[in-house]
Amino acid sequence: MTEKTALTPATHTTPPARFSHGVRKGNILQVAGQIGLLPTGPDQPPRVAGPTLREQTLQTLANVTAVLEEGGATWDDLVMVRVYLTDVEHFAEFNRIYDEYVESRHLTTPPPARTTVYVGLPQGLLVEIDALAVLD
Amino acid sequence: MTEKTALTPATHTTPPARFSHGVRKGNILQVAGQIGLLPTGPDQPPRVAGPTLREQTLQTLANVTAVLEEGGATWDDLVMVRVYLTDVEHFAEFNRIYDEYVESRHLTTPPPARTTVYVGLPQGLLVEIDALAVLD
Amino acid sequence: MTEKTALTPATHTTPPARFSHGVRKGNILQVAGQIGLLPTGPDQPPRVAGPTLREQTLQTLANVTAVLEEGGATWDDLVMVRVYLTDVEHFAEFNRIYDEYVESRHLTTPPPARTTVYVGLPQGLLVEIDALAVLD
Repeated sequence: MTEKTALTPATHTTPPARFSHGVRKGNILQVAGQIGLLPTGPDQPPRVAGPTLREQTLQTLANVTAVLEEGGATWDDLVMVRVYLTDVEHFAEFNRIYDEYVESRHLTTPPPARTTVYVGLPQGLLVEIDALAVLD
Repeated sequence: MTEKTALTPATHTTPPARFSHGVRKGNILQVAGQIGLLPTGPDQPPRVAGPTLREQTLQTLANVTAVLEEGGATWDDLVMVRVYLTDVEHFAEFNRIYDEYVESRHLTTPPPARTTVYVGLPQGLLVEIDALAVLD
Repeated sequence: MTEKTALTPATHTTPPARFSHGVRKGNILQVAGQIGLLPTGPDQPPRVAGPTLREQTLQTLANVTAVLEEGGATWDDLVMVRVYLTDVEHFAEFNRIYDEYVESRHLTTPPPARTTVYVGLPQGLLVEIDALAVLD
């Protein structure tokens, strides 16, 4: 039997429903849709990093990374990143912030594939990101 | 050569195009986007479970489960569930119904990761769900 | 260590950010979101195949195939295709074009699963498609 593990960074808020922030089973690691919530302690309410695309994107990417690390993975293990934005006008700025963040990861392998689409998100949220990693 | 199998529950209507309701290849099982269509016999037209979020969500989740079971999998094998809703106002109610359904699965492993976004769907549909499982 | 390879068809334009058109790691091959961009030479700007759903869909599917082939895979290896359209009125026509293309692949295994949702895309784009393959 292959072990299935929930990946729950200590600083992540409790999910609003019965799902895991990330799951690893065998060499597959799936990161759930992350949003720009700041790290919190156990009794604090969830709080978004800020109203701007930059604040939310950097926090969202940090949250993706936290889940990866909880599963013993890094950005080098990612094969796919799914980006959900709310406004096509954000594409260029998002890409600049994304590239900056990816550079900060110092990848030694090719960057993951990516899909970007424009959807609706709850009021105040500008970006949501999930990701799939394949570990060695 | 790893066998690739189509997963076609007997009660599922024929897909509207050349795709499979589910595919298993090796230990990977992918469930196609399911909607709230009721089980049908071979000569019956597709029929949605009802106009409410509750009716459609429960039927959609039952259809996901039917595809999983066709591939010898259960909710314990799921690593990711993708939820497509049409209205952000449905989030809280959807989560209640989802949690209820997940509880009814009596998981012995952590629940799968999940992403929820708000998209357009064909007239009358309120929810679509697909899922990825990794088998032992 | 399992090798991770970027899949970059020679005719594909450079991605607008730090992501790969496709990635293969072990037996998992992920195709990034493809759109209807025509093959180009190294110093040419990206150009969409045309304004119609047919032109864009066929080119998008050809681009998916090019990434697959770059990774030594074919449509027989696909387990999932994600279709992002912009207009629910396009569903029937899209399915006709999709079926035509899938038939042209002469699959010897069941067709991949599929999810189709309706989202926003940058001005002028009618379709985006990504895909997941599991190799033998």
